[in-house]
Amino acid sequence: MSQNPRPWLLPSGFEDILPARAERLEALRRELLDLYRCWGYQQVIPPLVEHLETLLTGVGQELELQTLKLVDQETGRMLGLRSDLTPQVARIDAHRFHADVPNRLCYAGTVLRATADHYGGSRAPFQVGAELFGVDSASADAEVATLMIESLRRAGVRDLVLDLGHVGVFRALLGDVPLSPAGETLLYRAMQRRAVGDVREALQALAAPGAVQEQIVALLQLSGERSALDEARRLLPDAPAPVQEGLQRLGYIHDQLAARFAGLRIQIDLAELRGYRYHTGPIFSAYTPGSGTALASGGRYNDIGAAFGRGRPATGFSLDLKQLIAPQQSSLLERIWAPGGSDPALATAIADLRRAGRVVIQSVNASTTDDVAEARALACQHMLAPQDGRWQVVALP
Amino acid sequence: MSQNPRPWLLPSGFEDILPARAERLEALRRELLDLYRCWGYQQVIPPLVEHLETLLTGVGQELELQTLKLVDQETGRMLGLRSDLTPQVARIDAHRFHADVPNRLCYAGTVLRATADHYGGSRAPFQVGAELFGVDSASADAEVATLMIESLRRAGVRDLVLDLGHVGVFRALLGDVPLSPAGETLLYRAMQRRAVGDVREALQALAAPGAVQEQIVALLQLSGERSALDEARRLLPDAPAPVQEGLQRLGYIHDQLAARFAGLRIQIDLAELRGYRYHTGPIFSAYTPGSGTALASGGRYNDIGAAFGRGRPATGFSLDLKQLIAPQQSSLLERIWAPGGSDPALATAIADLRRAGRVVIQSVNASTTDDVAEARALACQHMLAPQDGRWQVVALP
Repeated sequence: MSQNPRPWLLPSGFEDILPARAERLEALRRELLDLYRCWGYQQVIPPLVEHLETLLTGVGQELELQTLKLVDQETGRMLGLRSDLTPQVARIDAHRFHADVPNRLCYAGTVLRATADHYGGSRAPFQVGAELFGVDSASADAEVATLMIESLRRAGVRDLVLDLGHVGVFRALLGDVPLSPAGETLLYRAMQRRAVGDVREALQALAAPGAVQEQIVALLQLSGERSALDEARRLLPDAPAPVQEGLQRLGYIHDQLAARFAGLRIQIDLAELRGYRYHTGPIFSAYTPGSGTALASGGRYNDIGAAFGRGRPATGFSLDLKQLIAPQQSSLLERIWAPGGSDPALATAIADLRRAGRVVIQSVNASTTDDVAEARALACQHMLAPQDGRWQVVALP
Repeated sequence: MSQNPRPWLLPSGFEDILPARAERLEALRRELLDLYRCWGYQQVIPPLVEHLETLLTGVGQELELQTLKLVDQETGRMLGLRSDLTPQVARIDAHRFHADVPNRLCYAGTVLRATADHYGGSRAPFQVGAELFGVDSASADAEVATLMIESLRRAGVRDLVLDLGHVGVFRALLGDVPLSPAGETLLYRAMQRRAVGDVREALQALAAPGAVQEQIVALLQLSGERSALDEARRLLPDAPAPVQEGLQRLGYIHDQLAARFAGLRIQIDLAELRGYRYHTGPIFSAYTPGSGTALASGGRYNDIGAAFGRGRPATGFSLDLKQLIAPQQSSLLERIWAPGGSDPALATAIADLRRAGRVVIQSVNASTTDDVAEARALACQHMLAPQDGRWQVVALP
């Protein structure tokens, strides 16, 4: 192998997480998993590697370009590194659980991306999330959205905007307009750009009836406060029942979140179609004001498990824990230095402190001459020293 | 992509970890990281993916066959998936820390293997470990070995044998015998097989002096209780100073561990050469009696960081957390069922229970008719029910 002049250089998008950040990441990871556990979400740990075709089954179809691929040296088959945990957890619900009851699952793990989402972005997000299978109800959607906001609150994010949309409303308005793949993509992109002219054009190309065209175009105006839902009912009086049901469900989710989280800004947006190809109902994303990148997002994606033998209602959310940890954040624990040796009284004092969760570093340096200097060099603020006939924690002089 | 008749099938060596095992794994993961933290070991999180040549630098050289490889779609360069965390942590000590003081680091993460160690084995061990850089002392070796045994005790492993050897003794006895790579490999393999005749033959092929041959062959007999160290001093009276120092260090480590862990069986074995190519001093492996697979292992590997610009003394250990979790172990938390709805008194009761760490599953089923049946289906043992004018936890009837 050729000599590498800078052997420590990491590939772009990958990083070492050093102690101060690692400590914060670990603490938040625990707090979130404990939160989900208290709501009845059980942790599962799917593998980092699967057969490529499994990873790209069902909800995973969209992930092909994002998925790092390699050849299994044991079998010659193509493997993929997971780029999203949600499809894996949906597979687990479909294939590993059999009772037809609600199933709450949560997870925390690294996912890998072939390319970063944006310049300088991570290719190894640490994905944490929760999924609720088996129930298609407004309260299931609200529970998951509540956990998502609560997660961000626990991470210390105070100023938060929640975008709330509903992919099913758009789908229901399109009704039985026959969609060619190319025509559907054109329409979807025009909606994403919120370009009224392009949306009309795409709908005409699909030969959508005039009334449908007007309703879809109306969606582009339906964003804002909760009153946007009333406005939607006014502008879409003849819309099919699923549209009415969708608007009602958004109202319920909105009110639940508004009641629980004082100061949360909720933004209704009926033209938002994120994850359109696999989402089927309410969708939600949380941002800090002025930022273009969602801190967390989720939504309903019914029947994804069908490809694994069991289609079930499903809703969930996920977030990238690394995004929530400020790079500069430092909160290293207080450290106590102790001299080396095996004096039993010293050993007992050290063991007691550690049992109480304190950090004690015992010297392993055979030739320490200056205890205080060594303690300082190890970033300790205190040391164990003999005082009044016993070992006591004292501040460094 | 071709249709897959069994899309849920995982590649051999990879697995889903389901709730009961995941809960145990998560609990032990936390307990071990907390243990290391209390001894002053700071967590680091190296990336799953690095440039292949970085992964195979220094201590990583031996890992080539074990490393899964892929092409970086962004740059066309070869990437590797880590198959061992120790070399990454050594790179971090060498390159990210600059002070010339002892540095204690710990870690927990998945590593990936091109092939399983044994038939039916895992290709995705969950590696947990601790490394101590910057000090070459018997007490540093003893500290790391102590943490290793303590880790297994925390995992509930009671009956334990510790194999204790010293690669440096073998090296020092060979002295300046010129070693061809092929000749060294032959000798190493013969030592591993403990085949006296083959060892002699390999030494003759290397043109080792007769006295060296006798000393190396003597190592094959030097295993057993602590008295093997005295026997070694008797059989190797003219051995160079590093051999004497090595024997003394093994005695110190032995005595420290024996004093701390009642009932631990310590087996001295001077012919054991595990990790011979990168280990430089004392090495240790822990087994349950009768099992051929080590539950944890470690040892000294000085100067590994040199390839990254800073050679330092180093010692450490690691273990595969998955190996320590029995597949059948089940300890799922107690679960309390609660009816749906947003009655404020109910919401308060639920929030209080969750804050106290209890698991409460609130129904999101819009059409529940039989509360008790739903609670049972969700594997709850208790439910929240109105009694004496307030919400109380009651056992399911």
